[in-house]
Amino acid sequence: MSNSNNVLKLGLPKGSLQDSTLELFANAGFHFSVQSRSYFPSIDDDELEAILIRAQEMARYVSQGAFDAGLTGKDWIIETDADVVEVADLVYSKASMRPVRWVLAVPESSPIQSVRDLEGKHIATEVVNITKKYLARNGVNASVEFSWGATEVKPPELADAIVEVTETGSSLRANKLRIVETILESNTKLIANKASWENPWKREKIENMAMLLQGAINAQGKVGLKMNAPKAGLNKLIESIPALRQPTISDLADNAWVAIEVIVDEKVVRHLIPDLKRAGAEGIFEYDINKLID
Amino acid sequence: MSNSNNVLKLGLPKGSLQDSTLELFANAGFHFSVQSRSYFPSIDDDELEAILIRAQEMARYVSQGAFDAGLTGKDWIIETDADVVEVADLVYSKASMRPVRWVLAVPESSPIQSVRDLEGKHIATEVVNITKKYLARNGVNASVEFSWGATEVKPPELADAIVEVTETGSSLRANKLRIVETILESNTKLIANKASWENPWKREKIENMAMLLQGAINAQGKVGLKMNAPKAGLNKLIESIPALRQPTISDLADNAWVAIEVIVDEKVVRHLIPDLKRAGAEGIFEYDINKLID
Amino acid sequence: MSNSNNVLKLGLPKGSLQDSTLELFANAGFHFSVQSRSYFPSIDDDELEAILIRAQEMARYVSQGAFDAGLTGKDWIIETDADVVEVADLVYSKASMRPVRWVLAVPESSPIQSVRDLEGKHIATEVVNITKKYLARNGVNASVEFSWGATEVKPPELADAIVEVTETGSSLRANKLRIVETILESNTKLIANKASWENPWKREKIENMAMLLQGAINAQGKVGLKMNAPKAGLNKLIESIPALRQPTISDLADNAWVAIEVIVDEKVVRHLIPDLKRAGAEGIFEYDINKLID
Amino acid sequence: MSNSNNVLKLGLPKGSLQDSTLELFANAGFHFSVQSRSYFPSIDDDELEAILIRAQEMARYVSQGAFDAGLTGKDWIIETDADVVEVADLVYSKASMRPVRWVLAVPESSPIQSVRDLEGKHIATEVVNITKKYLARNGVNASVEFSWGATEVKPPELADAIVEVTETGSSLRANKLRIVETILESNTKLIANKASWENPWKREKIENMAMLLQGAINAQGKVGLKMNAPKAGLNKLIESIPALRQPTISDLADNAWVAIEVIVDEKVVRHLIPDLKRAGAEGIFEYDINKLID
Amino acid sequence: MSNSNNVLKLGLPKGSLQDSTLELFANAGFHFSVQSRSYFPSIDDDELEAILIRAQEMARYVSQGAFDAGLTGKDWIIETDADVVEVADLVYSKASMRPVRWVLAVPESSPIQSVRDLEGKHIATEVVNITKKYLARNGVNASVEFSWGATEVKPPELADAIVEVTETGSSLRANKLRIVETILESNTKLIANKASWENPWKREKIENMAMLLQGAINAQGKVGLKMNAPKAGLNKLIESIPALRQPTISDLADNAWVAIEVIVDEKVVRHLIPDLKRAGAEGIFEYDINKLID
Amino acid sequence: MSNSNNVLKLGLPKGSLQDSTLELFANAGFHFSVQSRSYFPSIDDDELEAILIRAQEMARYVSQGAFDAGLTGKDWIIETDADVVEVADLVYSKASMRPVRWVLAVPESSPIQSVRDLEGKHIATEVVNITKKYLARNGVNASVEFSWGATEVKPPELADAIVEVTETGSSLRANKLRIVETILESNTKLIANKASWENPWKREKIENMAMLLQGAINAQGKVGLKMNAPKAGLNKLIESIPALRQPTISDLADNAWVAIEVIVDEKVVRHLIPDLKRAGAEGIFEYDINKLID
Repeated sequence: MSNSNNVLKLGLPKGSLQDSTLELFANAGFHFSVQSRSYFPSIDDDELEAILIRAQEMARYVSQGAFDAGLTGKDWIIETDADVVEVADLVYSKASMRPVRWVLAVPESSPIQSVRDLEGKHIATEVVNITKKYLARNGVNASVEFSWGATEVKPPELADAIVEVTETGSSLRANKLRIVETILESNTKLIANKASWENPWKREKIENMAMLLQGAINAQGKVGLKMNAPKAGLNKLIESIPALRQPTISDLADNAWVAIEVIVDEKVVRHLIPDLKRAGAEGIFEYDINKLID
Repeated sequence: MSNSNNVLKLGLPKGSLQDSTLELFANAGFHFSVQSRSYFPSIDDDELEAILIRAQEMARYVSQGAFDAGLTGKDWIIETDADVVEVADLVYSKASMRPVRWVLAVPESSPIQSVRDLEGKHIATEVVNITKKYLARNGVNASVEFSWGATEVKPPELADAIVEVTETGSSLRANKLRIVETILESNTKLIANKASWENPWKREKIENMAMLLQGAINAQGKVGLKMNAPKAGLNKLIESIPALRQPTISDLADNAWVAIEVIVDEKVVRHLIPDLKRAGAEGIFEYDINKLID
Repeated sequence: MSNSNNVLKLGLPKGSLQDSTLELFANAGFHFSVQSRSYFPSIDDDELEAILIRAQEMARYVSQGAFDAGLTGKDWIIETDADVVEVADLVYSKASMRPVRWVLAVPESSPIQSVRDLEGKHIATEVVNITKKYLARNGVNASVEFSWGATEVKPPELADAIVEVTETGSSLRANKLRIVETILESNTKLIANKASWENPWKREKIENMAMLLQGAINAQGKVGLKMNAPKAGLNKLIESIPALRQPTISDLADNAWVAIEVIVDEKVVRHLIPDLKRAGAEGIFEYDINKLID
Repeated sequence: MSNSNNVLKLGLPKGSLQDSTLELFANAGFHFSVQSRSYFPSIDDDELEAILIRAQEMARYVSQGAFDAGLTGKDWIIETDADVVEVADLVYSKASMRPVRWVLAVPESSPIQSVRDLEGKHIATEVVNITKKYLARNGVNASVEFSWGATEVKPPELADAIVEVTETGSSLRANKLRIVETILESNTKLIANKASWENPWKREKIENMAMLLQGAINAQGKVGLKMNAPKAGLNKLIESIPALRQPTISDLADNAWVAIEVIVDEKVVRHLIPDLKRAGAEGIFEYDINKLID
Repeated sequence: MSNSNNVLKLGLPKGSLQDSTLELFANAGFHFSVQSRSYFPSIDDDELEAILIRAQEMARYVSQGAFDAGLTGKDWIIETDADVVEVADLVYSKASMRPVRWVLAVPESSPIQSVRDLEGKHIATEVVNITKKYLARNGVNASVEFSWGATEVKPPELADAIVEVTETGSSLRANKLRIVETILESNTKLIANKASWENPWKREKIENMAMLLQGAINAQGKVGLKMNAPKAGLNKLIESIPALRQPTISDLADNAWVAIEVIVDEKVVRHLIPDLKRAGAEGIFEYDINKLID
Repeated sequence: MSNSNNVLKLGLPKGSLQDSTLELFANAGFHFSVQSRSYFPSIDDDELEAILIRAQEMARYVSQGAFDAGLTGKDWIIETDADVVEVADLVYSKASMRPVRWVLAVPESSPIQSVRDLEGKHIATEVVNITKKYLARNGVNASVEFSWGATEVKPPELADAIVEVTETGSSLRANKLRIVETILESNTKLIANKASWENPWKREKIENMAMLLQGAINAQGKVGLKMNAPKAGLNKLIESIPALRQPTISDLADNAWVAIEVIVDEKVVRHLIPDLKRAGAEGIFEYDINKLID
């Protein structure tokens, strides 16, 4: 990698988040292409150099300065106790728009009902430090073992309880585990190295990238609506339909009509279009947008 | 399923129409997600509950009130003699925009030339009732056997003739069958239970859904065109190009020019753009639309 | 195929270019559909008949009049010395927008440093005529053998040097070959038969097709941006941002603001949106376009 | 199909049993090859002609003489009340070697505990006749509706109970259904038309086929074991190891030793080999067999 | 590649024959492994070096000494007029065991009925030299153009007739072509360079390879049968069953019985096993063999 | 899991070794079937219960008694310092029969030439304990960081050197790394818990399993050869061909000939069959074996 001030070194998460991350960047206007088995995506921006690395290691390498910036979860920043700048929250996970949760879970039939019941028990988890701090905060003594994977199949044979990440809880239920408590909510963050953040060129590059990524996230689930409406009832139309609060209204050649354009949540459209049609709008059409910066 | 008045129970066709139906609903703004092997799609609308069921059974269950509404073919409404409200025709089949046909077909070399030649013959079909009524209408006696599938390979060994559905006729030709007559044209319909249709909330929900589905179908094969044109020759331009009949014309900062926006059939564009360019339009661009409600 | 003057016979390249060619035509508004194993795509335009044929043979068949028009590479026009009208350059290759190159390549460790070192050597290539002319121009005697494929694995066992096509050079590097010289740059061209070109109906059809294909290529990597801006600082905004040179500016109902719409390179957006936002634009959104005819 | 006495017309089950049936025939020495979408497999035996047809229709067509013989389930022979010769039971289902069962199933929370609780209820099933006879035998009045598929998702909304086929019960459990009673056990049968069975050539052909199919089924899960053993302790060895009851014992050049060969269940091998080794056998090896006719 | 006398350089056909060729070699005991995209398979025999090359070029490179031996078709040996040793015929094509044929084919409706009707016509083919010689032998003047592929779609638009390879004729029929005449039958051959054939070590290596390849081909469609039979009727059994002509008969411990082992065509088994069973054989079982050298 | 003495709890390695491990067990006669996403394979042996678990954790859980036995690498036994019984070495890795190696690797251009040059450097590895002991043995101070994956892409940006596992070295070469030294050779081992090993029933079960697994491994790359040979030259034949050292020789009905059967390395066959044929053997055939216990 170059040491030039005019190149930003960026860490991207390898693994389950990889595809949705690269798609998010594409929507934001940064098109990476990854050769199969390569860890160094190429990109159509000479000011960026990227490497794919496990989310677990990202914060460590950003704090050490190996990367200027990177994407990783709030969970791994805490687990590795990394000293980085948290630039932006990016909530774009494929399955849902909810943040993920690290939860304490036990077998459905376990007598354990709260963290206090863990005294003297064995806990398996991928986040050993987070779990140990959580136990300490609650004044509980228990052994915590690092789990290399498949943590949710370990109770009751191989562990009394686990601390595991979940989005919908379905994998836990499938393994007949019961959630006792949520320990940590987490979402993806764009983080920066502290020294890089002090460099004006790098900071502007990171901030622009954050704005465009956020713009792409904002546009998800949003659509554009455009229609013609008679000037006469315009104010009434706009008042009666809250989603039309801030429309762009353009004059038309025909002075009696105006063109209305508005960006709305796609979920609203199923109510909005029938309302608009009944209120006299004509030629209503809907189109997709890629980015939205308010 | 809930019995609440504020939830609409909707039957969706399982099988060959499933993917195109779910895509149509997505285009209309209703995003179903189907777990593999599940028959109960989840959806991002709390007012809807859906079940996937074979098209053949749909009309029966809607008429019995198991569903408030459903999508099925006109053919199966007739075959099952179901008493339902036919809300809207939805022509969205993937292979073509033409309705499908149920035809009487025989081996290419068969002497059968019309329905009258079927006297005393054996007919295999999936639509036993439609076929029997058709024979009765024509005063012909013939045995009709229910076919569990692969009907088109049965003549001449296992049947003298078949009544089978076809879109393009290619599967019949591949099995060396000749079409004698078309018995029924069919297309998908949105149907409603009679009692549900009398419930105002349910009726409005169904009507809104019909409007959005129709809007998504209307938008297929339509595109938006936008261009700048000199105000001078504007009337002549619009007159000379019929596809521009109802454009949205906006003033521009430069008073000598206007912006023209129009939604047209994509098939027209191959003639329209060259004409517009020659007529003096500039900065012509084309974009996709999702829904169009006139 | 029909002999009618109102049908244009079009050759499309079978093989590696096929998918991107059909996608380009679809973007241009011509939707071909290819049955698996068929060489005769169907199309939703009665004025077109198409056949898939290897790019190597295209120019020959167009010059002989078997097709009115066709798409092939400049390389194969030269290799087959075909007498055709070159209507338009179409640069749409998937891997990059750069033209491909035919290069002279030798093993990394070969002493050959220039074309002059080929005297008495054996060269394997798919473009025998281009290679022979190149050697003649340089006054070099060498044997040139037609290679049926896998040319890049032949040196040093089966050839001393090769003349091979490359886009990025990666396949040559993977086979430990060194590029000595570029012999020919090539890109896809729309070509026409000379007699067809004299037929006014065919010529207009070909020219319209060229315009739409070019429009689809122009739109690649372009996006539309729309935003609201205060009328006050408008001139300053436009001056300070070169990419906004020719915006469409529409009046809004609120006289203090205008709507700005502009088509720009997607690569510019990553700088442009932050600049616009800082300059006071609001409600900036981006959308895709299909075609752009300036 | 030919009417020759020297050709046997054979019906094979299309659908879920197709692949395992063709594999069974291949193991028996009859190699069918099926073109994609064709219903007429070709085969390397001029005395056979085959057609793929749904198992539900097989018995009907065999009884009518359209086929000389066919494979279908005992269930469909009963459901269609077909008059055929049942030549052989063929238990080769992929998931297990157990026969399948048609069961009466209800929602887990249903109050229905036995067939007697069905009075006045609605039952959905693919085997309407079997179900009606079952209800009649038990003196119960209930409505039985033909189900086109996905029967197991119908209770409780669309039916009170179902009669459905199951091998392991897992699909029923997944749909939260409880088995009330088993109505019918079924397995695949080779059946013959009565007239064909009287034809000596056809009967011998069918009987040979049955012998080879049975031989292929016998060989599943069997392996051959071969070893050398000292003649001295031979009788003791054979007596102490029951699985060796009927070995082939050959003399060896070395008179003090014999070769022992035996066909055994593969499941026995895990105990047998250690026993043999400890009892003094040497050079023990195991090999696969294709057919076994005792 | 090494120049050592103790390494044999072997050319293997790239393309449609590649998989079946490598499988044949594996059955013969030579296990090649091909990295994806590599043309240099590795092999578990230090005395062999292999390269994958198009069958069309094989004979040329073997005759020039680039390879000691290679596999290619008789057709390409003739087309390229290569001077090589033809060591063995290897008939192992996947679709059938029949040799392929190069045929003269014309549209079904063409008036051309024999080679003599080709006078003045255009012929497209991949085997230009074979075709020209064939025309010369028949005293016919016609133009022959090299076809880069998809030859069978060219008539009647792009050629009057074609010379094309076919195994079953199905691709010709699908393109509505009629076979006029067979020009050449061809099968795969193991060929050797003349000088390599004079080298004793290389010749023995090639001959051993030929023996093992032939042994693997012989074993295709052959199986082993083993059974016990009473010594009493042994001679009668063997006489009455021709396929048992040369069995291996071993004594058993029980003097009244013998073990019979015989290798037979798998196709014979469907008659043989029923006959054996009826003739008193017991414990008949069948097993697969890999190689058979008579 | 059951606590019964008559059930053996067995850990199987999840991940890259999983498929080859289950295949090895199948060859040994233990057929596991794994539902997708399940970690508890079912098996056709009531005396076994299995769980899939990462190889890294296996030795820990076996030493703690969670499993009676398990398969894991010698490397992970050492890394986790687990106190277990090492029952058998099982060398069955798919890519080769060689053990894997953990090596110290650095960038090709690195000045590091031996472990002594690591003083003060950063090392990334998955085996932190093995690496630290290795450094200690060599008296070197260096920081060792746990690597979550993709270790081979880390030098030189993210580490100065790595300790990584390799079978063929190709992944290291592809990442332009140079092997400095081999630290540890490792292969798969069957291990047992110390208490379970003292239980006679469990020990016999484990020992039988080891014998059968070893028998399946022995059979890999072995084949059976059978042939007839004239009794006359038998001794000479056997003496001249070392691979025939311990054949099974059976008398034949024809006293002048004997049957010879022998199990040999498949690699030997390519020389052996030609030799046998030349020495007068007839009817030579080869067959596969599944297990071989000498």
